[in-house]
Amino acid sequence: MMKEERVIEELRETVCRLHAELVRYNLVAWTAGNVSGRVPGRDLFVIKPSGVSYDDLTPESIVVCDLDGELVEGSLAPSSDTAAHAYVYRNMPEVNGVVHTHSTYASAWAARGEAIPCVLTAMADEFGGEIPIGPFALIGNDDIGKGIVETLNGHRSRAVLMQNHGVFTIGESPKAAVKAAVMCEDVARTVHVSRQLGEPLPIAQDDIDRLYDRYQNVYGQRSSR
Amino acid sequence: MMKEERVIEELRETVCRLHAELVRYNLVAWTAGNVSGRVPGRDLFVIKPSGVSYDDLTPESIVVCDLDGELVEGSLAPSSDTAAHAYVYRNMPEVNGVVHTHSTYASAWAARGEAIPCVLTAMADEFGGEIPIGPFALIGNDDIGKGIVETLNGHRSRAVLMQNHGVFTIGESPKAAVKAAVMCEDVARTVHVSRQLGEPLPIAQDDIDRLYDRYQNVYGQRSSR
Amino acid sequence: MMKEERVIEELRETVCRLHAELVRYNLVAWTAGNVSGRVPGRDLFVIKPSGVSYDDLTPESIVVCDLDGELVEGSLAPSSDTAAHAYVYRNMPEVNGVVHTHSTYASAWAARGEAIPCVLTAMADEFGGEIPIGPFALIGNDDIGKGIVETLNGHRSRAVLMQNHGVFTIGESPKAAVKAAVMCEDVARTVHVSRQLGEPLPIAQDDIDRLYDRYQNVYGQRSSR
Amino acid sequence: MMKEERVIEELRETVCRLHAELVRYNLVAWTAGNVSGRVPGRDLFVIKPSGVSYDDLTPESIVVCDLDGELVEGSLAPSSDTAAHAYVYRNMPEVNGVVHTHSTYASAWAARGEAIPCVLTAMADEFGGEIPIGPFALIGNDDIGKGIVETLNGHRSRAVLMQNHGVFTIGESPKAAVKAAVMCEDVARTVHVSRQLGEPLPIAQDDIDRLYDRYQNVYGQRSSR
Repeated sequence: MMKEERVIEELRETVCRLHAELVRYNLVAWTAGNVSGRVPGRDLFVIKPSGVSYDDLTPESIVVCDLDGELVEGSLAPSSDTAAHAYVYRNMPEVNGVVHTHSTYASAWAARGEAIPCVLTAMADEFGGEIPIGPFALIGNDDIGKGIVETLNGHRSRAVLMQNHGVFTIGESPKAAVKAAVMCEDVARTVHVSRQLGEPLPIAQDDIDRLYDRYQNVYGQRSSR
Repeated sequence: MMKEERVIEELRETVCRLHAELVRYNLVAWTAGNVSGRVPGRDLFVIKPSGVSYDDLTPESIVVCDLDGELVEGSLAPSSDTAAHAYVYRNMPEVNGVVHTHSTYASAWAARGEAIPCVLTAMADEFGGEIPIGPFALIGNDDIGKGIVETLNGHRSRAVLMQNHGVFTIGESPKAAVKAAVMCEDVARTVHVSRQLGEPLPIAQDDIDRLYDRYQNVYGQRSSR
Repeated sequence: MMKEERVIEELRETVCRLHAELVRYNLVAWTAGNVSGRVPGRDLFVIKPSGVSYDDLTPESIVVCDLDGELVEGSLAPSSDTAAHAYVYRNMPEVNGVVHTHSTYASAWAARGEAIPCVLTAMADEFGGEIPIGPFALIGNDDIGKGIVETLNGHRSRAVLMQNHGVFTIGESPKAAVKAAVMCEDVARTVHVSRQLGEPLPIAQDDIDRLYDRYQNVYGQRSSR
Repeated sequence: MMKEERVIEELRETVCRLHAELVRYNLVAWTAGNVSGRVPGRDLFVIKPSGVSYDDLTPESIVVCDLDGELVEGSLAPSSDTAAHAYVYRNMPEVNGVVHTHSTYASAWAARGEAIPCVLTAMADEFGGEIPIGPFALIGNDDIGKGIVETLNGHRSRAVLMQNHGVFTIGESPKAAVKAAVMCEDVARTVHVSRQLGEPLPIAQDDIDRLYDRYQNVYGQRSSR
């Protein structure tokens, strides 16, 4: 097997396995959520096939697409969200992983078209401020992808709430994008619950800045960031 | 074993296994939910026996009934909801699977007699608009079945919230009906959570139409619809 | 082994195993909930030992008490709620199983001292009407037991919400009492969720009566009631 | 192996295993929560390494720190919350276990800067009254540790809600601190849910005192306290 084939094979395994995290954290119902990962150094990415249940996902079932979202390798049709993932990879070269879910609390904020305010230190750490709202967009062309990129470009947040729809998260790796999806739902839920009984206290902008800066540069094992 | 016997045996296995999805998605407590499936080409359907726990369900314990809801085969009494399932099969020939649950959020809308408004693209995809309310009806005759059929006939939604009661979903297969039950609870919860802190933004009717049309015709693997 | 010893051994196994249902349905945190069962024909019952985690429960660890709540057999101290269970067995001869939990939604109603109104057909089936509130009572004497018995005597409901405390349920068997605890939390949650966004529709009293009568006499497998 | 080495090895195993309780009770998302334990008779404690997933935790990966929070043994960087744990151990000699989580309901109260009122007998038992709020404090120096100690010194509660942040709990053992974290989230959720539909009834102070006194002195197996 050539080296490049091995890289794609390993990426398929990684992306297949990461879908189990969406299930574990209750971010998805039935087949409504997907993870993709860019093939390093190639204009390709791998993504979940459409309408396949998480139990039945195997590395082999993960399909390979080019950056126009066209199927390059695999026997199944790619996720119906493939065009949005492809648009992100085409326009954000620093992104190597994309995740899409309809997780409950994040989608509830999205249905109101309301950004999640940064009232938790964990939000400042992970998202550097509020989690923003992207536009309402129909599936079937580049509108969703454009909405993601225009909202996240130049924004600290790696998560965007697409209005009336759900969440897209991005990362320097598929795992980082999955982490952002998990943390996005976690803070969406906590801030929701907090606001049910009153108004959460704001965090001063310079405290948010300090928390974000520290977390991006200090947290975790240096080699495993 | 004759071919028809094998068809019924396989259907019992499928319907038995699908009950595990009700458990997995927390749609049922104790024994309060059931799945049935029509025997292809016969005036028969298979359904959960009454009051049996999901752990104890086996393909053999699934009973066979005729379209009047009378037990045809099996040693246990059929589900107390059998008459409602039978009425649906008698009156909706395109339906091959029926599911009933008291899932929390859907039943909460049902207790207020309030339809779930279509404010999520996933709802437009799956249900083509709001999830409607059916009448209050007592168990013991055809009232529940009639309420389901009168509400869903000519309606895009494959789910109905029976007032003060719970959910019935229908599908072209038992699996499709289970999917509708899972998605119904998912959107019932998300729209509930969204409305707790304000008013979700409406989706324009022609956007709902486009989303519904596309999802019904494009989503998933062509062969596995 | 004498026949009576075998009866007690089997009851210990049953009661041990039923605690797993409290865990499965998320009715308990840490060690805060317990199941007991009356020894048929004897002034004895078996109950969970105090402060033992559900993972560590074994049939042998379940203790035997007399109807004054005194330890008769077993090496561990009985549950701190033993006096309440004992009082129920002394004063309600038809009761053969008692369950106590602090399940979230039921305890939330209990903290407001508010009965759960009967707005779901499943509540009419199982509880025959509202789930009532019992008095505030301290642990350490017969006050909790008295509160349970005075509230449930002559009441259809097999569950009582003890004010600021939690739930006690009773049954003709330990399994029936566990079922009541599971269904109590289920309807407590659904009615809570329903009321968060408005007022649930009432069910007419004679409909409640008909539902209750039917469920008590028709539901389930005749032999397994 | 010397006796002291064995003590540390066992403590690492205990602390490693206790992290699974944080996962089981849904107190943590991704890697955001940690348990530590003091080495008996030594100015050392063991704690989770930073940014390591709960699935990958092994006793060997748990690191040993001195009471200034400096790494003494282990190949991974200690938790980013190590300074707060260290401050508690330096200033509260009776504490042998510390737990930190961002559990949803407790953090929701923390985001509003609101103490959880004691309206459940289980709260009176475990916390002896309300669960207090600590100050807003940034990570990176002793501010969080100071906030914990100043809030809990002389307070019955073994849990503190750090404003806009999350929960810290303390105990005479790591297990006791984990129990406090589990019970804190449990009562935070129940009181939250109760207040969603009205005002929970207060418990009189002398009843709280009696419940607390009894629970601290009577509950559980005498030897396993």
